[in-house]
Amino acid sequence: MRFTSEQRLDDGVLEREFTLGEIPGILWTPASAPSPAPLILMGHPGGLHMMYPRLVARARHAAAEGFAAATIELPGSGDRPRVPATEQARADLRRALEAGEPVDDEIVDRLVLPLVDKAVPEWRVTLDALLALPEIGGPVGYSGGVIAIGVRLAVVEPRILAAGLFAGSFVPRAMFEEARQVTIPLHVLLQWDDEGNDRQMALDLFDAFGSKEKTLEANMGGHTGVPRFAGEAANKFFTRHLK
Amino acid sequence: MRFTSEQRLDDGVLEREFTLGEIPGILWTPASAPSPAPLILMGHPGGLHMMYPRLVARARHAAAEGFAAATIELPGSGDRPRVPATEQARADLRRALEAGEPVDDEIVDRLVLPLVDKAVPEWRVTLDALLALPEIGGPVGYSGGVIAIGVRLAVVEPRILAAGLFAGSFVPRAMFEEARQVTIPLHVLLQWDDEGNDRQMALDLFDAFGSKEKTLEANMGGHTGVPRFAGEAANKFFTRHLK
Repeated sequence: MRFTSEQRLDDGVLEREFTLGEIPGILWTPASAPSPAPLILMGHPGGLHMMYPRLVARARHAAAEGFAAATIELPGSGDRPRVPATEQARADLRRALEAGEPVDDEIVDRLVLPLVDKAVPEWRVTLDALLALPEIGGPVGYSGGVIAIGVRLAVVEPRILAAGLFAGSFVPRAMFEEARQVTIPLHVLLQWDDEGNDRQMALDLFDAFGSKEKTLEANMGGHTGVPRFAGEAANKFFTRHLK
Repeated sequence: MRFTSEQRLDDGVLEREFTLGEIPGILWTPASAPSPAPLILMGHPGGLHMMYPRLVARARHAAAEGFAAATIELPGSGDRPRVPATEQARADLRRALEAGEPVDDEIVDRLVLPLVDKAVPEWRVTLDALLALPEIGGPVGYSGGVIAIGVRLAVVEPRILAAGLFAGSFVPRAMFEEARQVTIPLHVLLQWDDEGNDRQMALDLFDAFGSKEKTLEANMGGHTGVPRFAGEAANKFFTRHLK
């Protein structure tokens, strides 16, 4: 892990960009926190530059509660080399949604399964590197989308003790079996009228999770309309489970 | 409104039992609060004595946030005269649930519609009496079950500005049209495995509400298993909307 830039934000949060091999990422650490700090891995749909305003807002809220936060670019997104098969699947999904057609399971499989297979090991080596820093100690949570990545991480990565998932993207049917294997506490956000998601699939996925403690919070509005109070509730969830 | 008893609880909350005509009720006012205080009407399934431990816990949490809280006995419950048709419908519902049969709409109509028709005017005269007290000023919220009573109150009672509903009881199909007329902010709690409720009906009802701001919070467990943090989230909701 190599830090490539460092700046102090106006609320005292330290923001450092890094690369880990070919993967770019950002680490935010709170101005004042127990050291080592608990950590929240922040998922997103890909495109660090485009997502930066929302990511830094989430990181600041997390830092205000004493959490470090980190994110990495997804394979095939942002400045990373495009993956032609993923691009094709993404275009097929967009076409189906714009035409108002039901989204074929086969498109979802082509789009999401290879992404999960690549991204999850990258998150895990990132976690190795982050936990090797003296200022980061865990426990660790995963927060946000891509929800299928969060599901796989929750199953395979024992260092992740709680996950706040955003049910805002399609999940391959094959991964419902993995969802049943999830046992960590979950806080699942759903936008009730998400234009790029299937509400019934999200409800079925919530039902499938094996966790004894799981909460579904559904709010009105589209994909990007998550209300501010929902972020606060998610922070409360992590405070309950990671501190 | 006639106060029949008065005691100071150990956290300073003043608890007063009252009667309003033949209707018994309880009013809790916080030890220290802006006077006049905002008010939360607390619904329940009927049976004030049996429900007292849970009601007083909810009232204490509300009082800690500066809210007065009040509740009244439901028609046909507790010390009030039984209503034979309601008793019959309740027995029919219980029999269907115990047999694992689908609950007939006709049973739900017989059980809930007359209850709503009687209880809602009683809540409204109670509200008149409470708001006439110098220590109670509004704004007013409704919290809890019976959800069909909350729905009707949200439509017909303009002094209720926000409702935290508990989707833990059946709602007559005829009332879905009323649900569409609800426009106040809603915070709806659902117990995912509620043994005496229909999950899909609760989701359909949430979908039907006309409110621009509505949140569904679903947690694991049965009817009486609402986790403590869900109560805190509901309090946050009322603090956002009634203060």
